[in-house]
Amino acid sequence: MKFDIKKIDTTLEKEIQHKINFKTKPVGSLGILENIGTQISLIQNTLTPTISKPTIVIFAGDHGVVQNHPVSPFPQEVTAQMVLNFLQGGAAINVFSELNEIDLKVVDSGVNFDFENNPNLIHAKINPSTKDYTKEAAMSTQDCEKALGKGADIVTKIFSTGCNTIGFGEMGIGNTSSASLLMSSFTNTPIEDCTGKGTGHTEEGVKTKVDILKKAQSIHTNATSAIETLAAFGGYEIAMITGAFLQAAKLQMTILVDGFITTSALLAASKMNKNVLDYCIFSHTSGEKGHKKMLESINAKPLLNFELRLGEGTGAALAIPALKAAVAFINKMASFESAGVSNL
Amino acid sequence: MKFDIKKIDTTLEKEIQHKINFKTKPVGSLGILENIGTQISLIQNTLTPTISKPTIVIFAGDHGVVQNHPVSPFPQEVTAQMVLNFLQGGAAINVFSELNEIDLKVVDSGVNFDFENNPNLIHAKINPSTKDYTKEAAMSTQDCEKALGKGADIVTKIFSTGCNTIGFGEMGIGNTSSASLLMSSFTNTPIEDCTGKGTGHTEEGVKTKVDILKKAQSIHTNATSAIETLAAFGGYEIAMITGAFLQAAKLQMTILVDGFITTSALLAASKMNKNVLDYCIFSHTSGEKGHKKMLESINAKPLLNFELRLGEGTGAALAIPALKAAVAFINKMASFESAGVSNL
Repeated sequence: MKFDIKKIDTTLEKEIQHKINFKTKPVGSLGILENIGTQISLIQNTLTPTISKPTIVIFAGDHGVVQNHPVSPFPQEVTAQMVLNFLQGGAAINVFSELNEIDLKVVDSGVNFDFENNPNLIHAKINPSTKDYTKEAAMSTQDCEKALGKGADIVTKIFSTGCNTIGFGEMGIGNTSSASLLMSSFTNTPIEDCTGKGTGHTEEGVKTKVDILKKAQSIHTNATSAIETLAAFGGYEIAMITGAFLQAAKLQMTILVDGFITTSALLAASKMNKNVLDYCIFSHTSGEKGHKKMLESINAKPLLNFELRLGEGTGAALAIPALKAAVAFINKMASFESAGVSNL
Repeated sequence: MKFDIKKIDTTLEKEIQHKINFKTKPVGSLGILENIGTQISLIQNTLTPTISKPTIVIFAGDHGVVQNHPVSPFPQEVTAQMVLNFLQGGAAINVFSELNEIDLKVVDSGVNFDFENNPNLIHAKINPSTKDYTKEAAMSTQDCEKALGKGADIVTKIFSTGCNTIGFGEMGIGNTSSASLLMSSFTNTPIEDCTGKGTGHTEEGVKTKVDILKKAQSIHTNATSAIETLAAFGGYEIAMITGAFLQAAKLQMTILVDGFITTSALLAASKMNKNVLDYCIFSHTSGEKGHKKMLESINAKPLLNFELRLGEGTGAALAIPALKAAVAFINKMASFESAGVSNL
């Protein structure tokens, strides 16, 4: 599967910088908001950027490893229970999305449960769970390709409704383990440095988790390409997010990157086409060990540091007000000239 | 002037923690938002905290030193011009306040200009400018007391309209110099470590500024109490913010602390009554040198790090969405029991 992603066109950069520098404020005094405002303007190739119909898509999937190994303290049923919680509006991501006027969609990427129809649920199940990667690949490369395509199609549909700003969240008991394995492969970092507490392991639990993940690594030494690595260790939700990242960049959308698991999908995406990074704004550094190093591996400078470790896209949702502020100051602030304020 | 400020009542702490821990999320996974949510609940002594009519008050004042010494690259007229810009809605703080639904008030604390009446302008001028602190005290202790009282009265009026969450901003060409002097006195730090670029000094400019501030320190060695120090080096806007902090805490409001200059007013306030700190949430670490150290001196853990160095209350305005999120998750998220999600 090929994604043609343009590098950002920087033709307008000087003009945008000029517009920002003549706002009624000391030069550079809006710090990181100026960088984000410039990036969004360049993505949209305009001096009047917008945040239209911001949307977060939560991809949910189950992990085969969970049924044989204690990689998470929570049971697998929680994945489906949390999907139902998303659909009923009771999760953190629901609360933050409502607060910040974000459209929320939920995708069954491969949850071990049959959901009824619901206007906010997108059915995209490929299998009811991945396979146990300590024994075989989590999915075939064919199914992994299929997942990329489904993630891409979902983004295309959302884009067609007028959305230009998108973030991805995830739910899947066991998926920090997949993210740790992907990070270890894609950034060439020992698995110990990629493995953290997840939803709440004890130190003893983390040690056990590392041992399980080492076993997984030992049987997938042949997985070298991005797609093979993603198929070996990924979840269906992670593979769909990978496709979603690539398609959103292809469509020149502004992409808000969430936490540890979604960033692992971005690592996979950037191995397939590094131009995807031009379209990414990094919402936060999570409290999950490894996320900071993961972000550094792609030179990402995250906006927030609230020590979140929840997933669901919550970091992305909480960063939306900063994006709105970055766009608003460019569009709405007076210039020195228009306000009659003396400039330097 | 005495401000009786109660220490926060922590009776409900266990009950609040219990409510948070049974939300559908791993324990502690909302990080700093959980701390803030708890603090606001304790301030309001409730399990259902609210952010009502959030308000930012910008205090503006001119500084005598500016007329004799190059402490700022901008001319003094800019203070009045920016007040007019606030009233016309063209400044960064206007844009961010509108975006985050914050009421904005502007106070003439002592600007060298006669403003016409305007529904959003509060006239509280004590003098059209402070005096040059390289020659004499910026204001008399009597005028400083008067400023504390005016700041307090303004907060009382805003509180009476139903506001329970308040932030303070400032405008005043030269006022980072006052803040540096106050920081140096209150935290016992050499003036070099308290002095930064302000609105945009060169390195050479910063050196000159340090020399001027050293001269000011040399003639005010007798100023030892908080009120004497504030009168020696302060601005009217800083003194009014000091009174405003103390009164907001007395009224048990949630207080959002902005950047370098407003935090210097908080240092003064906390020397007068340290209980004021119980009510403070620190919105951001600014890009101005010294702010980080200033915050550390009162064990403050700021929410944002956007490298802002603009003042006006912009950091406070940008942090309001995080406060709303902290309150919303406590009030609106489902519990494990209500959502039918398996707990550990």
